[in-house]
Amino acid sequence: MKIAILPGDGIGPEIVAQAVKVLNVLGESFELETAPVGGAGYAAHGHPLPEATLALAKAADAVLFGAVGDYQYDNLERSLRPEQAILGLRKQLGLFANLRPAILYPELAGASTLKPEVVSGLDILIIRELTGDIYFGQPRGVRECPDGPFKGQREGFDTMRYAEGEIRRIARVAFQAAQKRDKRLTSVDKANVLETFQFWKDIVIDVHKEYPDVALEHMYVDNAAMQLVRAPKKFDVIVTGNMFGDILSDAAAMLTGSIGMLPSASLDANNKGLYEPSHGSAPDIAGKGIANPLATILSAAMMLRFSLNKPEQADRIENAVKAVLAQGLRTGDIYEAGTTKVGTEEMGNAVVKAL
Amino acid sequence: MKIAILPGDGIGPEIVAQAVKVLNVLGESFELETAPVGGAGYAAHGHPLPEATLALAKAADAVLFGAVGDYQYDNLERSLRPEQAILGLRKQLGLFANLRPAILYPELAGASTLKPEVVSGLDILIIRELTGDIYFGQPRGVRECPDGPFKGQREGFDTMRYAEGEIRRIARVAFQAAQKRDKRLTSVDKANVLETFQFWKDIVIDVHKEYPDVALEHMYVDNAAMQLVRAPKKFDVIVTGNMFGDILSDAAAMLTGSIGMLPSASLDANNKGLYEPSHGSAPDIAGKGIANPLATILSAAMMLRFSLNKPEQADRIENAVKAVLAQGLRTGDIYEAGTTKVGTEEMGNAVVKAL
Ligand SMILES: CC(C)[C@H](C(=O)O)[C@@H](O)C(=O)O
Ligand SMILES: CC(C)[C@H](C(=O)O)[C@@H](O)C(=O)O
Repeated sequence: MKIAILPGDGIGPEIVAQAVKVLNVLGESFELETAPVGGAGYAAHGHPLPEATLALAKAADAVLFGAVGDYQYDNLERSLRPEQAILGLRKQLGLFANLRPAILYPELAGASTLKPEVVSGLDILIIRELTGDIYFGQPRGVRECPDGPFKGQREGFDTMRYAEGEIRRIARVAFQAAQKRDKRLTSVDKANVLETFQFWKDIVIDVHKEYPDVALEHMYVDNAAMQLVRAPKKFDVIVTGNMFGDILSDAAAMLTGSIGMLPSASLDANNKGLYEPSHGSAPDIAGKGIANPLATILSAAMMLRFSLNKPEQADRIENAVKAVLAQGLRTGDIYEAGTTKVGTEEMGNAVVKAL
Repeated sequence: MKIAILPGDGIGPEIVAQAVKVLNVLGESFELETAPVGGAGYAAHGHPLPEATLALAKAADAVLFGAVGDYQYDNLERSLRPEQAILGLRKQLGLFANLRPAILYPELAGASTLKPEVVSGLDILIIRELTGDIYFGQPRGVRECPDGPFKGQREGFDTMRYAEGEIRRIARVAFQAAQKRDKRLTSVDKANVLETFQFWKDIVIDVHKEYPDVALEHMYVDNAAMQLVRAPKKFDVIVTGNMFGDILSDAAAMLTGSIGMLPSASLDANNKGLYEPSHGSAPDIAGKGIANPLATILSAAMMLRFSLNKPEQADRIENAVKAVLAQGLRTGDIYEAGTTKVGTEEMGNAVVKAL
């Protein structure tokens, strides 16, 4: 089985190196091939998603992705900026289902800005649609305003859209995920204002007929943002569109206070996927050997479970991560008095040892 | 000066009654006129925003609004549902600037789900554009999908748009508000993905030239959602579009844990405005006499300051609210052991007495 390794920018290479070390000691015969992406892709080939990188990602059974973005690429024109790589990979590979767990490890409850009783034991799964919505809808651009009080001025515009089949397939992923958990699904929309999300809601209600064992509720996105702050543990699985999912999944991740621990998966229709930590490229700490590699290591575990059909290996890695936390090892981002501060490599080595 | 009183549904009438009592003891000669809106408008005249109600709102110098929505209207077709009243009032009255303070009163720090050190002393102001964006953009609807892999299926779609002049005027409101506070403005966008918000960002940067004394930063909406959870006190004034503002202002309000305390103002170009509590109509507790009237009373204070040019009266009300909190009076939503639980009327009477 072939895995494309795309380390990217900032802390990407350091944290991906630890996950690769972990993959290499599992005793499986994976073929790993590395290619530059994001700013590194631009630096090497003049484009954030070089053709050879895209070809590798397409040919592989799964993609392990670090993070993209660094200060020196901030002033490039938009089409050349690092984040275009991730948008391009999602679209080109058809990675429509983004799974983002927000889990609070008991040992790290203190890291949250929320009171322990509100978040301890938090375990929610946000499923974000990833190839539709206002992210890719056409037409979009800057044009002359065609009507209304600002007619004739310039205006920026974008198109939000969801087709029936797009909603059905993400809803199915969400209902099936809920079936494996507490069987409760919250579909987040803005049906009171947006036609797209009234349509979304209608289709989700229809798909629900295929999954009568799952309890479905509908919630407006503004209320969902409130309930995540007020009582996040009430959620089991949340499904929503690309734009709302971008906002809510980051808010949910931050509730844990330990975003350096959170993996993510982006899957296509055949469970091929791209796996990446939920955090970014953190260029301010890049190269210092202090970044937390656990989110990337846990992303590799998700990869083994969802794309490579090795659930026992995924369990092994997840247990090894729990073991190093139980040993009291912490990178700086999750450090508390009374624990042992370690660097990126030490943490990676500790996971390898726990395996 | 004429004030339109629109109590609406659920707890609306109870809480507005307390604010009216407060207005009546200020010793000013306001002319108050009441009209039904939302579900009450539909029940009385078959439409959530009856013509006479709209005419009254247009003729008045300011509008005091309760809340709309109740279970019995949930199954009406969208154009007749209560929330259409508030969307209609915003659009018809040109109320483009929504000011939503998120303030944590020291006495109520315990009500927050966040740790006291993260939120105590919180005082941020969110300025949400209220008449543009994807809320009103045309075209919108359900159509046959014109292209791509779902071609021929039904799709829901909406249009996001902001014209130059729309961005300029809300940016000016925000810069001016920041000038009266800590002189720091965060413009929240999604310029890395949306054409509308790349344009938004460019125009905000241009307007900044008129306000060189204000420090301007730009933040992506997903990051803003995270920073509100991680370190909300770092913000001073936030300005953003209608959709992002809907989500972020509710999240920010919930950080305080006391949304029953938070007023809001929606202003037009001449400082005429509509004033309403940030919370909703709470039909589950309507008629029980237990709702918190303070957000509505504080909305009346905002009305005196922004639309009726009576800043001393606004100060008086705000000080009276602080006084009743200091006396230990609490409605159920903000009650803690050691304080005195009171009902809606008692709370209103206490504010009147403190005046
Ligand atoms: C970098 C950006 C385009 C991206 C997004 O908005 O999807 C990021 O925020 C994410 O969530 O992966
Ligand atoms: C009721 C709804 C249409 C409204 C909105 O989305 O603007 C509400 O959520 C608000 O924030 O006032």
